[in-house]
Amino acid sequence: MDKVTHVVPKLHLTDHGKSASPRMEYPPPFPDSQLENLVSDIKDWQITHGSLLKLVNTDQDSTVLTHAVGACLFPTLFPKEQFEQALGLQKVYNKLYARVAEDEEWLYDTLKDDEFARVLWDIHKEVKKEGYVQDHSLGIFRSDYMLDANPAGQVKLKQVEFNTISCAGGIHSNLISDMHRHLQRRGAYVAAGLDDTTASINISASHLPPSHTLSTITSGLVSAHTLYGPPKSPDAEQTCILFIVQPRNFNIADERPIEYALWDQNIPVFRVELSPEILAHTSLTPTRELLYHPPSRAAAAPLEVSVVYLRAGFEAEEYSGPGCGDAREARVRVELSRAVKCPSILSHLTTFKKVQQALAVPGVLQRFLPSSGEAFNISSTFAQLYPMDASAAGLEARELAMDEEVSEGYVLKPSLEGGGHNVYGSAIPAFLACTPEEEWSRYILMSKIVSPTVQNLLMSPQGLYKGPVISELGVFGVCLWRRSGEAEGRVEMIGNTEPCCWSFKTKSKGVDEMSVVKGYGCFDSPALVDNDVFMACCRDDEQG
Amino acid sequence: MDKVTHVVPKLHLTDHGKSASPRMEYPPPFPDSQLENLVSDIKDWQITHGSLLKLVNTDQDSTVLTHAVGACLFPTLFPKEQFEQALGLQKVYNKLYARVAEDEEWLYDTLKDDEFARVLWDIHKEVKKEGYVQDHSLGIFRSDYMLDANPAGQVKLKQVEFNTISCAGGIHSNLISDMHRHLQRRGAYVAAGLDDTTASINISASHLPPSHTLSTITSGLVSAHTLYGPPKSPDAEQTCILFIVQPRNFNIADERPIEYALWDQNIPVFRVELSPEILAHTSLTPTRELLYHPPSRAAAAPLEVSVVYLRAGFEAEEYSGPGCGDAREARVRVELSRAVKCPSILSHLTTFKKVQQALAVPGVLQRFLPSSGEAFNISSTFAQLYPMDASAAGLEARELAMDEEVSEGYVLKPSLEGGGHNVYGSAIPAFLACTPEEEWSRYILMSKIVSPTVQNLLMSPQGLYKGPVISELGVFGVCLWRRSGEAEGRVEMIGNTEPCCWSFKTKSKGVDEMSVVKGYGCFDSPALVDNDVFMACCRDDEQG
Repeated sequence: MDKVTHVVPKLHLTDHGKSASPRMEYPPPFPDSQLENLVSDIKDWQITHGSLLKLVNTDQDSTVLTHAVGACLFPTLFPKEQFEQALGLQKVYNKLYARVAEDEEWLYDTLKDDEFARVLWDIHKEVKKEGYVQDHSLGIFRSDYMLDANPAGQVKLKQVEFNTISCAGGIHSNLISDMHRHLQRRGAYVAAGLDDTTASINISASHLPPSHTLSTITSGLVSAHTLYGPPKSPDAEQTCILFIVQPRNFNIADERPIEYALWDQNIPVFRVELSPEILAHTSLTPTRELLYHPPSRAAAAPLEVSVVYLRAGFEAEEYSGPGCGDAREARVRVELSRAVKCPSILSHLTTFKKVQQALAVPGVLQRFLPSSGEAFNISSTFAQLYPMDASAAGLEARELAMDEEVSEGYVLKPSLEGGGHNVYGSAIPAFLACTPEEEWSRYILMSKIVSPTVQNLLMSPQGLYKGPVISELGVFGVCLWRRSGEAEGRVEMIGNTEPCCWSFKTKSKGVDEMSVVKGYGCFDSPALVDNDVFMACCRDDEQG
Repeated sequence: MDKVTHVVPKLHLTDHGKSASPRMEYPPPFPDSQLENLVSDIKDWQITHGSLLKLVNTDQDSTVLTHAVGACLFPTLFPKEQFEQALGLQKVYNKLYARVAEDEEWLYDTLKDDEFARVLWDIHKEVKKEGYVQDHSLGIFRSDYMLDANPAGQVKLKQVEFNTISCAGGIHSNLISDMHRHLQRRGAYVAAGLDDTTASINISASHLPPSHTLSTITSGLVSAHTLYGPPKSPDAEQTCILFIVQPRNFNIADERPIEYALWDQNIPVFRVELSPEILAHTSLTPTRELLYHPPSRAAAAPLEVSVVYLRAGFEAEEYSGPGCGDAREARVRVELSRAVKCPSILSHLTTFKKVQQALAVPGVLQRFLPSSGEAFNISSTFAQLYPMDASAAGLEARELAMDEEVSEGYVLKPSLEGGGHNVYGSAIPAFLACTPEEEWSRYILMSKIVSPTVQNLLMSPQGLYKGPVISELGVFGVCLWRRSGEAEGRVEMIGNTEPCCWSFKTKSKGVDEMSVVKGYGCFDSPALVDNDVFMACCRDDEQG
């Protein structure tokens, strides 16, 4: 993996040697002192708004150190048309994935070769044998896109992946969006003086779409909680929402604000780890209410769980690692219960990249979206996707992937988890050479998205970077549905929120992976511009 | 200065060896696991709400580390009667100090021997020669109190000091108060199980007064800004508030939220350092409007300053240290201007402890508060205060201070700044012995306030402390007045806000100084109880 190599150790970023002809500069060239002020303003804003990460190794009894999460100094240019296209597609994507989740037959067929999917499938089977007692599911999804530039100089929106469990980054992006909007209103983006040879974009409030990610995610949870209604068990006096969280998470800033926002609406929220806390602190009544017994209220009445929101349980290691023996049992208990799950086990299964790839097979979308218009709009965002199994398409993909030159245009992705374990371009043949062939089917092959680059400054604990950057837009979808044999696609949509919530991440061009909390890339917000302005600002050089 | 010595390195704080008879325990005894959860909840809350301090030595271009500011795990018990007494007195204290500020003759007489006061007085004289053009002043005051226990077992409210410039701690306390209220609503203060030998106080929402410190301070600044009205200078298109701040402040969490709250009300706020930024980025028009020229908007119109809010300029070193040459000139420019000052130079002068001591001289209060009821209520909060000069009262004080035994009951305080440079009890005679006698008059002598101790757990980067603690309540007073020869005491009160804002700090009994940002003590909020409950919980032992 490339490291960020263009770290500028000091704040001497002023441009030198400008050409005589005027050209479009964004971000505007700032004198050093103005850039120093901007950096200082950003750090203070992040500190006072919790835009931070814990340094896990400093987490002691009485203290823990934090530093600001990586952030872009300026909002990054992004074409307005594609931003609106992505937001406009989300309600259809929500419907699509709800229907996929309720199509057991197709889902089983698609995922039957995946080891971790089988673990989850077995949980589903076990619960199905007892019978599900909750027909409703809450989806908090995130569809990720990048821009793809074709040789004709047009840009197109291409989907990177679709996530249905534990979608993160929304709160961080909400904060950075708020910050960029604050900096804009206080005039921090107006360059102190541009000479005649340079033009720039004067960022106004209308370039910066507001983010309502925190409130939208919170509203989704409130809807499901409200739908659940009062406690059914005579043992419980009130209901609560349960967050299942990972232990020692250093990225609490992306979870805790949702919890506080729910408490502000008088909805009790408690956090538990999947294992062993679920088994220790919950119980199922004979009629399958899930009761939560807070350890801090041993003598008091338990609460009945209305909604279980998973911010854990999405990694295979959480079920099979040392000390994880009971995680499967905990998940079974949750699924057996009457609580609304976000996501349900079937919905969780739709997050595998095998599903994304299988949906791209010609004709498949029509199974879930009979409207040809909807299917067309969705499929226009698909990159080329191949299985890596022994099917005809898989054998074709293997040929592409093993070719030293052709593989340059592809990414090999494990079916399960986005980002972290991808193999890029020319590294694919060597990787496959040392991977047993029977394991190849766990991967999919995807054509590389070649994004146009614009310029920005990125700030993270690793340093300041100035140069060409690439952004990824994640659109959050919040929806609540009921499984129903009579409804189209077995799904009755009860709530399908108009999306105005997104994550936006930007990395230096030289880095393949996009994971801000791991130190690759920064949280960001888009500065929306017309396509021609965007294209005029696309540049690949290291110094603006 | 004592260090915190009772640091408990690990979370094994469970009580052992309880006596057979039930006794009142507060905080309730928590099992280790519940205490660990509480600690974890508090750290996450502080991180996500900016209840933090910068580690200055880590402040680099692209990053800075932070840690949570010291906080009490539980709200500390405090008698409701004295809390309400303190809040109830604040409007009278506001009036008193506004009148003192407008009584030049008395103020000059009181402060004429103080070196730093003379520096400020000279600024006043210089401005007065030109003539003041702004009759209004904004006060954001803070009156600090501790509880004094007398041998009869009663507690009384005693004033520690009165601050009229750059009053800090309000935002931190607001945050910790919000946090304690959040923890209460989520049931974090209910002990998992008390045995029959122990009783405790079940903290409910009604014990915890809400803090409106941020919104009250912000409202005060908004009032002064509104009173100023539209720009008077044809060169300015809009008005703004200027914060004068100290460079490289690690405690930005106590300032920045006020700035953001003003921007949220569409009031532009800019931060400048006293020197050299004021001189570089402001100018006075011939009619004395103060114009601010933001460095980030060199080409744009300047803004006219409506209000100058000082969070700097209160230390002598800021005017006399290396590179401070222009600080005096900057302060003169601000005073000369039409902007409303918070505080004005005369109001700044009232913060000296010589003023506090002089007001305690019998008969003096009546000069400012002709109502005997008001004067009586105010004076009931005075500790014994003596000058250390060559007057009759001063000579008496010198005798007290030089006596090895008697001095135990006193604190020697420099006239200027609260907290940091006090000399306590038996250390006074030795301190005076090596201080030239001509400098003694810069100090005042104050009887030690002997606070009753209750129990709590304090958490700070230095460690966890469990044991007897002492609290200090600071009541914020926000008021706006006009100097007027015709009004009583030369002051026409335009706004005198009902106080519902306070700071609350708690330290271990063994520590003399109270300065949370320096690591002595923690921010806190009071759990208000009746006097008899408070007294029943007063205990001095190290382990509950």
